[in-house]
Amino acid sequence: MTQSRFSFSIAATDGKARTGTIQMMRGEIRTPAFMPVGTAATVKALRPAEVRATGADIILGNTYHLMLRPGAERMAKLGGLHRFMGWDRPILTDSGGYQVMSLSALTKMSEEGVAFSSHIDGSKHMLTPERSMEIQRLLGSDIVMAFDECTKNGATYDEAARSMERSMRWARRSREGFDAGGDHAARAALFGIQQGSLDEGLRKVSADALIDIGFDGYAVGGLAVGEGQEAMFACLDFAPSQLPQDKPRYLMGVGKPDDIVGAVERGIDMFDCVLPTRSGRNGQAFTWDGPLNIRNARFAEDMGPLDPDCSCPACTGWSRAYLHHLVKAKEILGAMLMTQHNIHFYQNLMQHIRNAIAEGRFASFAQAFRTRYYNKGR
Amino acid sequence: MTQSRFSFSIAATDGKARTGTIQMMRGEIRTPAFMPVGTAATVKALRPAEVRATGADIILGNTYHLMLRPGAERMAKLGGLHRFMGWDRPILTDSGGYQVMSLSALTKMSEEGVAFSSHIDGSKHMLTPERSMEIQRLLGSDIVMAFDECTKNGATYDEAARSMERSMRWARRSREGFDAGGDHAARAALFGIQQGSLDEGLRKVSADALIDIGFDGYAVGGLAVGEGQEAMFACLDFAPSQLPQDKPRYLMGVGKPDDIVGAVERGIDMFDCVLPTRSGRNGQAFTWDGPLNIRNARFAEDMGPLDPDCSCPACTGWSRAYLHHLVKAKEILGAMLMTQHNIHFYQNLMQHIRNAIAEGRFASFAQAFRTRYYNKGR
Repeated sequence: MTQSRFSFSIAATDGKARTGTIQMMRGEIRTPAFMPVGTAATVKALRPAEVRATGADIILGNTYHLMLRPGAERMAKLGGLHRFMGWDRPILTDSGGYQVMSLSALTKMSEEGVAFSSHIDGSKHMLTPERSMEIQRLLGSDIVMAFDECTKNGATYDEAARSMERSMRWARRSREGFDAGGDHAARAALFGIQQGSLDEGLRKVSADALIDIGFDGYAVGGLAVGEGQEAMFACLDFAPSQLPQDKPRYLMGVGKPDDIVGAVERGIDMFDCVLPTRSGRNGQAFTWDGPLNIRNARFAEDMGPLDPDCSCPACTGWSRAYLHHLVKAKEILGAMLMTQHNIHFYQNLMQHIRNAIAEGRFASFAQAFRTRYYNKGR
Repeated sequence: MTQSRFSFSIAATDGKARTGTIQMMRGEIRTPAFMPVGTAATVKALRPAEVRATGADIILGNTYHLMLRPGAERMAKLGGLHRFMGWDRPILTDSGGYQVMSLSALTKMSEEGVAFSSHIDGSKHMLTPERSMEIQRLLGSDIVMAFDECTKNGATYDEAARSMERSMRWARRSREGFDAGGDHAARAALFGIQQGSLDEGLRKVSADALIDIGFDGYAVGGLAVGEGQEAMFACLDFAPSQLPQDKPRYLMGVGKPDDIVGAVERGIDMFDCVLPTRSGRNGQAFTWDGPLNIRNARFAEDMGPLDPDCSCPACTGWSRAYLHHLVKAKEILGAMLMTQHNIHFYQNLMQHIRNAIAEGRFASFAQAFRTRYYNKGR
């Protein structure tokens, strides 16, 4: 049996929501999919087998972090990211474009790319579309993201247009760089990234430019950058429909559980976000009844499970009182268990979403989800 | 079948070294035993099942930390330490005496006990032999330690004598306090602690005082406080022999692998130490070839296992290069895997020690161990 490099099949639609599967050589990705973030070659505080046990089909790696430490050439020498970290299923890598602007010092952007200094040791680096493709190839990424500029929130129309146009030129250079990658290009997939800020016309120009180049999937970029959920949803009312129906659509950096439900409703298939991992380390747990902070004193003698509706190891093995104690005492096990629950919750949410779409009841699922999630009774 | 409250049987001796088992209601403890330290109701960075999988039969909990957070009365309300943290095998708790002097502020010692302020929130507390017994009962400890004063390193003969004599008065009050504990006293065991600094005569006076009171086991206290291995071993040349042959002897707070081998050689049956957990979080791994620091740059591209002679999950699942990366990047998974290896190494060492004693070849084992461990070839 021949394994497919990349194929996306939609099993069912319900309104604009879709459920299906992406087939890749390293495994199947059920959509809508949530990708836990493994910034520095680890989903923080979890072993790969623990990540997989939550139901995750794919994780995300950050090009910016990995190019600085351990370094792309070193990673290739060590056999690539999968072998390095012990995760044998698909990995999507971002292009580094977003984080180089938000994390590094002394950045200088030109048509060529971005020159910057490492936030770790001050060393000088240059990221271009071609170098980003090379790094993602050296990492051994399964889904490579085009190198783009994430247009800043609040950009004027002219700023958004100029930024989007540059990203489209970089998208073409990314395509060419990726295609020159030999064996890797024959195994991996490349996604383009739509920009255009919140403007419907610019988003359409961007979508058409990407379609003209041709990608395996299309991301909606430049959202979740401070515009707020209402503005994001308004943009998602038109942006996904401008992208091909038969390719996966990925909303980058999103988000809260209610963001995800609303974005699926608007035609999004893939998500990534640091929220479940980062919040977990800070003591925030996600539940069907909304987020709760386990540090709250009312949990100090609560012998019930973190989330009564959850079957994850953290919820079946320990009490809220114990997790409260661990997080207050800054114990590593607290970060481990809270993260494990949150990723489990996110994957369970995605499974509920997929089932609801498959069974043609997504609208009522979404309504029931929001009613319960926003009813902060606890 | 009736389960024994506490019984110690020696299966084999080899020189002064002994191997056997302690039977308790919550399970069997194979001796010589190493007890991982679970300071604040968690062996740092490991789940209880992961601790057990290393081969640990018993863990240690710290009375001082637990009485301050979550608090002894609260712990009792929550069902005790075992249920709280999810460890159903034996737990030994220390008396709080050592840590109250080393960690808390504004301590004031009298014949009654020690008044102190919490290092966490400054709250005022008092530890006495009676209160220490009560706290260890509230925690649900299986092996309770008498409340004593750890005589400081470098004490004069008179200081050591006065300190030891007070500890012996406190040992009697501990025995009485423990025996007044009702149900708990019928399930748990109480160990006395020998003091007397490095003086053979004082150690003998202390041993005789403890034997007169009568305990289930006897600790050699006041060592590993800065005197160095040579002085410690010189003391262990006589101190264990002053204690009953038919009861377990526990060397508190020890130690490095070579300390343990040398102490077993001198008749010690039980150990605890933060070294494998604390060092693990700092990047130090224990191996048969001595300790190594994974942060060292020479490991950055080393695809071999952390310890080629180890079968633990960290050594079979990942490379030195990956562990180097995780520890350098301060990733929680680095602490998790390094700790898992170190506790596994310690338990594996204890199993080798037990086998060597059982097979009457402990002296040659110890010799071979030292030759390899001190030959810092790597």
